[in-house]
Amino acid sequence: MTSGGASTAVSTPRVGRPTWLYQLSKAGKLCVPAMNVNDSVTKQKFDNLYCCRESILDGLKRTTDVMFGGKQVVVCGYGEVGKGCCSALKALGSIVCITEIDPICALQGCMDGFRVVKLNEVIRQMDLVITCTGNKNVVTREQLDRMKNGCIVCNMGHSNTEIDVASLRSPELTWERVRSQVDHVIWPDGKRVVLLAEGRLLNLSCSTVPTFVLSITATTQALALIELFNAPEGRYKQDVYLLPKKMDEYVASLHLSNFDAHLTELSDEQAKYMGLNKNGPFKPNYYRY
Amino acid sequence: MTSGGASTAVSTPRVGRPTWLYQLSKAGKLCVPAMNVNDSVTKQKFDNLYCCRESILDGLKRTTDVMFGGKQVVVCGYGEVGKGCCSALKALGSIVCITEIDPICALQGCMDGFRVVKLNEVIRQMDLVITCTGNKNVVTREQLDRMKNGCIVCNMGHSNTEIDVASLRSPELTWERVRSQVDHVIWPDGKRVVLLAEGRLLNLSCSTVPTFVLSITATTQALALIELFNAPEGRYKQDVYLLPKKMDEYVASLHLSNFDAHLTELSDEQAKYMGLNKNGPFKPNYYRY
Amino acid sequence: MTSGGASTAVSTPRVGRPTWLYQLSKAGKLCVPAMNVNDSVTKQKFDNLYCCRESILDGLKRTTDVMFGGKQVVVCGYGEVGKGCCSALKALGSIVCITEIDPICALQGCMDGFRVVKLNEVIRQMDLVITCTGNKNVVTREQLDRMKNGCIVCNMGHSNTEIDVASLRSPELTWERVRSQVDHVIWPDGKRVVLLAEGRLLNLSCSTVPTFVLSITATTQALALIELFNAPEGRYKQDVYLLPKKMDEYVASLHLSNFDAHLTELSDEQAKYMGLNKNGPFKPNYYRY
Amino acid sequence: MTSGGASTAVSTPRVGRPTWLYQLSKAGKLCVPAMNVNDSVTKQKFDNLYCCRESILDGLKRTTDVMFGGKQVVVCGYGEVGKGCCSALKALGSIVCITEIDPICALQGCMDGFRVVKLNEVIRQMDLVITCTGNKNVVTREQLDRMKNGCIVCNMGHSNTEIDVASLRSPELTWERVRSQVDHVIWPDGKRVVLLAEGRLLNLSCSTVPTFVLSITATTQALALIELFNAPEGRYKQDVYLLPKKMDEYVASLHLSNFDAHLTELSDEQAKYMGLNKNGPFKPNYYRY
Repeated sequence: MTSGGASTAVSTPRVGRPTWLYQLSKAGKLCVPAMNVNDSVTKQKFDNLYCCRESILDGLKRTTDVMFGGKQVVVCGYGEVGKGCCSALKALGSIVCITEIDPICALQGCMDGFRVVKLNEVIRQMDLVITCTGNKNVVTREQLDRMKNGCIVCNMGHSNTEIDVASLRSPELTWERVRSQVDHVIWPDGKRVVLLAEGRLLNLSCSTVPTFVLSITATTQALALIELFNAPEGRYKQDVYLLPKKMDEYVASLHLSNFDAHLTELSDEQAKYMGLNKNGPFKPNYYRY
Repeated sequence: MTSGGASTAVSTPRVGRPTWLYQLSKAGKLCVPAMNVNDSVTKQKFDNLYCCRESILDGLKRTTDVMFGGKQVVVCGYGEVGKGCCSALKALGSIVCITEIDPICALQGCMDGFRVVKLNEVIRQMDLVITCTGNKNVVTREQLDRMKNGCIVCNMGHSNTEIDVASLRSPELTWERVRSQVDHVIWPDGKRVVLLAEGRLLNLSCSTVPTFVLSITATTQALALIELFNAPEGRYKQDVYLLPKKMDEYVASLHLSNFDAHLTELSDEQAKYMGLNKNGPFKPNYYRY
Repeated sequence: MTSGGASTAVSTPRVGRPTWLYQLSKAGKLCVPAMNVNDSVTKQKFDNLYCCRESILDGLKRTTDVMFGGKQVVVCGYGEVGKGCCSALKALGSIVCITEIDPICALQGCMDGFRVVKLNEVIRQMDLVITCTGNKNVVTREQLDRMKNGCIVCNMGHSNTEIDVASLRSPELTWERVRSQVDHVIWPDGKRVVLLAEGRLLNLSCSTVPTFVLSITATTQALALIELFNAPEGRYKQDVYLLPKKMDEYVASLHLSNFDAHLTELSDEQAKYMGLNKNGPFKPNYYRY
Repeated sequence: MTSGGASTAVSTPRVGRPTWLYQLSKAGKLCVPAMNVNDSVTKQKFDNLYCCRESILDGLKRTTDVMFGGKQVVVCGYGEVGKGCCSALKALGSIVCITEIDPICALQGCMDGFRVVKLNEVIRQMDLVITCTGNKNVVTREQLDRMKNGCIVCNMGHSNTEIDVASLRSPELTWERVRSQVDHVIWPDGKRVVLLAEGRLLNLSCSTVPTFVLSITATTQALALIELFNAPEGRYKQDVYLLPKKMDEYVASLHLSNFDAHLTELSDEQAKYMGLNKNGPFKPNYYRY
């Protein structure tokens, strides 16, 4: 195998999901080994969870100056991105509920203190509607019709598919661009819905990405490429791989000094007791963090 | 295969880890298929994270009546149990720092707002020392010697190995049982360390387990046994398996009505777009929640 | 005046409010000077807010072992006690709403992320009903009739007046004592409501008071008595007084070393700029903290 | 007296404190009645606490794009503004400590989970230094000299006095304007300190004020003017007054519908029991909220 043909599912944050890589692989059409960097823990938990926890606030403030305290918010999707958004908004005094299709994530939402509802049940009362599902048409025209005046709608999830923006480009509705990335869509009765970034990703369009997150994601990608390049013939076939855990741990360790964090080292006796190598990896592959 | 020989790594909360199952399997000595129920998401995230978030408070209050506000706490280990303990104590006004050996968990600790330290750096200042590592001798006699008067020491992790309690059974120290599960260990200079449950699990010894958690864990175990019993010949070999994701999701779905949670259903179009079956499973096996 | 006749509105936590002192004073029947210790900041903010933040959890766990995560809770009254209860329960994953009569407290509730509702709107869905109003008949028999099976009802507020317990002592309802301080009140259709401490104060009946809070309250009371005893003739008339701010500050300063807290001292230049004495008092009398 | 001469201590948020009014009054030089609107509860708790909770995040993001998670922060001053800043930063994963001169506020800081330190003890480790004291020279040149490279310094408190910016205008230091409101001050060894808004108020210079807060403050000011204008001869003398509590409550009640908040009304029996008028005011003047 030549490393020249290797591929990493590098992505600007969360835009390109590796689904297509798995589809290519299943179809037998993947002609090089690929690393699914997107689903490595240093990407999922740090970029998606911790970064979105901040960028949802930043993106909303820069575009709308909305006060979070007391606002009724529905977050569609309680994956890592949704968890980040919910955590931040709850902490700042918003009253947050969520929608979910996955019962496990829904039960996590319950335990974290969020009502799990169907969008239709709450859409009339909401001040803010945020999508983080990775799906399409999560917010439909019918739901947009039922929103109250001044409701803010934005997408933190995936591409520009989550809100059915196309349905809003219709003759009975007027669009008014009030500032960059902010449109008022105006109904015949004067109701205004505030649409951010025309339904594209708020965190990429209306906020900035901290250098810490860029660093952690770029390091992960670089290490994946080095691994593919250096790997002995035969370690990787024409398939999709997750980054070896030891490399995930290495990425994390490179960023600890930034926080003046001091790791504890296992003693020989402790390493033996745990059945671990003192230098890691420290967790089984299925560990969830 | 006969189901009679199947084994589930059922455990009272977190006592029996499935490490030995994997060791048996590696050694070729596992003579039946086994389900690693302990590491299913409904066990790890619910029992370990959410339940310990409550039982750390409950166990400490019932034994010591300590006020959490303003207390300096070190939590050793930032896995699910440590995350639960830290989250609860931080919310109630304790000043919490953590120790970790795994750089990924350590970086999560940073992002969650906890200083990552070595135990020796902080041991003199702490009001509370809590172990959740699954390891042995995490708190040594030397560290016990350096604790301040009145320091409370307890274990939320694993068995009774984490605190070196044996080292405290020595002639120069006096033990005084002040109430059930609470010992004062008294140094020659009069210093007292408050040891809970003689270093055994605080949440099992000194607090109760909510029926919700018992139900979710018992359901997971029952489904695992049913799966092993019903599985067609050949689906499971003499190895250790994780519960199929669809069953994890089923366990969760059975508990949603308890919280009046309303799941959203995928439309046909959405299911197709996501490449999902409308009834799940909704996530790839490596998904971390 | 002789100090022997002086009175301090000392109270076990929140039981005796100083209303009667003000009524006596208004009626000209107060025959000695009195200090309203109950409303000093070291009592209100520390005992009521911070202590109740912990005792609501403790009292509920010791009596019912309820899991807080995901529970629907209504807290009646958003004063200091209500704020403490709401903050703790929200942090542990309960979904909390409040009732209020005072628009300022209600608006604080909004900003803190709690829906402000009338009890009748939500009573059917609640898992937990907590009263902290200082008023009477806040939870009526009609509302008790509408609670769902298993609903827990308790009082953190004042005396035993908040829940109309008398109305439950009626022939069609059966009382079952399930453990000390816990009664199941059983409706003819089998519905059970879990009544704690027969409607008396949960934090006094079913939890303990941390020594820190006892110390801060007792210090305040002792200083008030010393002040009344030592005050020169004429400083205090037959009226109700609040503790001088400098004494409040002194009480607080005596407890700081407990937390290894290091105060900053004003420079001469800074004190002059602020118009303050370097030793306090540091705030005007109307300051709210 | 004619109402035309009345004065309200109206202020853009927190700039003009009413100290000078009290000084004029003390000196007998106040020639009209004045309302101290700045210290009304609807100003202090809403503008200072809840608004700053959001504007600290907004101001920092817009100017520096800093990630909050894991950052070491010291907040100087734990009044309403400091409480708001600390609460927001803690919620987003910063590790926050505080400085205080007032033992009561310091003890509140302890109970809220913040280490209380002297600035000199921590200055070398901090990533962010935020002043909210209302004082002068809280951050001195000597402390600026000891900050680490990249430390961000800003002022949320009062005027432009808190950071000794003048001391930075000295020949050995280079100033580099990196964007509007953001200066890098560069030491001879290359160290850079990031100074925001040249030490002026971050929330006024670098963030926006939500319309909700403008509304609540403007309503309070307008009501104060109406009260002074309408008051019968003699109600107000040439002195400084706080807004009557009933007006504070009225301001709050006007903003509740914005949050779909539903107030509970006292029954006649309850009002009598509490000794309250059913329409308020609901609290004694010294109530702290």
